[in-house]
Amino acid sequence: MSRCGTRAGCAPLAGATGGEGRKAMTYCCGILVREGLVMMADTRTNAGLDNISTFRKLHIFERPGESVLLLATAGNLSVSQGAIHLLDEGVPDPADETITTRLIDAPSMSAAAHLVGIATRLARTQASEGFEQSGVNFDVSFLLGGQIGGGGMRLFMVYAAGNAIECTIDTPYFQIGEHKYGKPILDRAISFDMELYDALKIGLISMDSTMRSNLSVGLPLDLALLRRDALTLELSIRVDASDAYFRDLREQWSKALKAAHIAIPRPPYGGVQR
Amino acid sequence: MSRCGTRAGCAPLAGATGGEGRKAMTYCCGILVREGLVMMADTRTNAGLDNISTFRKLHIFERPGESVLLLATAGNLSVSQGAIHLLDEGVPDPADETITTRLIDAPSMSAAAHLVGIATRLARTQASEGFEQSGVNFDVSFLLGGQIGGGGMRLFMVYAAGNAIECTIDTPYFQIGEHKYGKPILDRAISFDMELYDALKIGLISMDSTMRSNLSVGLPLDLALLRRDALTLELSIRVDASDAYFRDLREQWSKALKAAHIAIPRPPYGGVQR
Repeated sequence: MSRCGTRAGCAPLAGATGGEGRKAMTYCCGILVREGLVMMADTRTNAGLDNISTFRKLHIFERPGESVLLLATAGNLSVSQGAIHLLDEGVPDPADETITTRLIDAPSMSAAAHLVGIATRLARTQASEGFEQSGVNFDVSFLLGGQIGGGGMRLFMVYAAGNAIECTIDTPYFQIGEHKYGKPILDRAISFDMELYDALKIGLISMDSTMRSNLSVGLPLDLALLRRDALTLELSIRVDASDAYFRDLREQWSKALKAAHIAIPRPPYGGVQR
Repeated sequence: MSRCGTRAGCAPLAGATGGEGRKAMTYCCGILVREGLVMMADTRTNAGLDNISTFRKLHIFERPGESVLLLATAGNLSVSQGAIHLLDEGVPDPADETITTRLIDAPSMSAAAHLVGIATRLARTQASEGFEQSGVNFDVSFLLGGQIGGGGMRLFMVYAAGNAIECTIDTPYFQIGEHKYGKPILDRAISFDMELYDALKIGLISMDSTMRSNLSVGLPLDLALLRRDALTLELSIRVDASDAYFRDLREQWSKALKAAHIAIPRPPYGGVQR
């Protein structure tokens, strides 16, 4: 069974949601630790602050027991949805357009990342036709994580130009979208050897920091978790404002930060150096 | 006595430090609370990661007992130094260039903010001559805080176009430069009624978060503190890597963050929503 776990995958190729400038400000984060992979994305898109909507940005391609690929998207929504659609239905081979490959049929994770790159270039070209002079930004980026058959579990970031980089154990996470507010906690707390659900927790704290400082990133959140070598999703849920754990996490984190800065003594500085 | 507390103010008008693309990535922060004003800036500039230097970005214009103005700069270094030079020596009146006004002679803080705007436009025009086609970014921004005579203490942000906005008690701080990494702690911890040295402490935590996540912001830091109605600087120091208090602050904050996220329980989530 192949499955594109997203409503967006069924949308028309481009522009259905307003290629005219709907920016997916978005925050997505992927963390690859020894035990497995965590991916998360918010669901807010906006074309100006008066036009805010909810769209799924975390897409699941799965054949349980065989392959699980998680794809998170940031940037222009018409391009990212166009690329998702191609990846779901089949990406034409640049050398022979009669041959198409679906993401779920990619033979390896690096082949899958390459396929996402090709789909991105095609979707950008299709979406930008007619918009050459309009100054619309068709940039997108993707996080692709997962495991295919006996291959290793891997995490890639794919840029708008279609090129990709792979996550390594030294910095075992990638972010796309509005990444800066939530980066300090990842820089401090994530390590390759941490427990998988601790990585999920740190990702949620990073998401909280981002949502507090930027209105364009908002609830609900989509979370997915894939244990190494399981080849079947362990967790895939949507967390909204009514979620008690996430509410508690936000409150505890806020209180702990307050206690932390109160505990630090005031600066002893004095004097004017002329 | 008028004083431009900066080596930069004595530099030639433009390009002396490489108008060809030396970017002041910079992080500056100004906090205006009931008791007074805190301003701080890092000192790192770079024209590529292999060309990192130290430049003062926090400039002091002071007539003790009469006026104290603090000006922090971010963006293109040749433009910001050009503007500082004009503000120190006298900004020509757009209507009559034979009339010049020095920043220290501005009759009010709003007039001073207006003068910074005029100096910015002039310095940008001068710096960009000959660079029209080069794609060099001549954007700059300023934080201007202080108090002049019996007028109120105020804090402005001046944009590259010369326009300005003023800080209000609802969000009593401004940031320029690489502001996102250090914004979450300000959003959570700063309030208008907090003690002045607590505001300085929170500013230092914000600076620490920024330096951890972005190499282009670095030590030493310049700090200045002006108590409301004092009309004389209370604190003006440079903090470098050997500073024991700042070292302890960074370590305590790091430990407290670690303790805070460890104290939060792991997510109880499970299951796959199809």
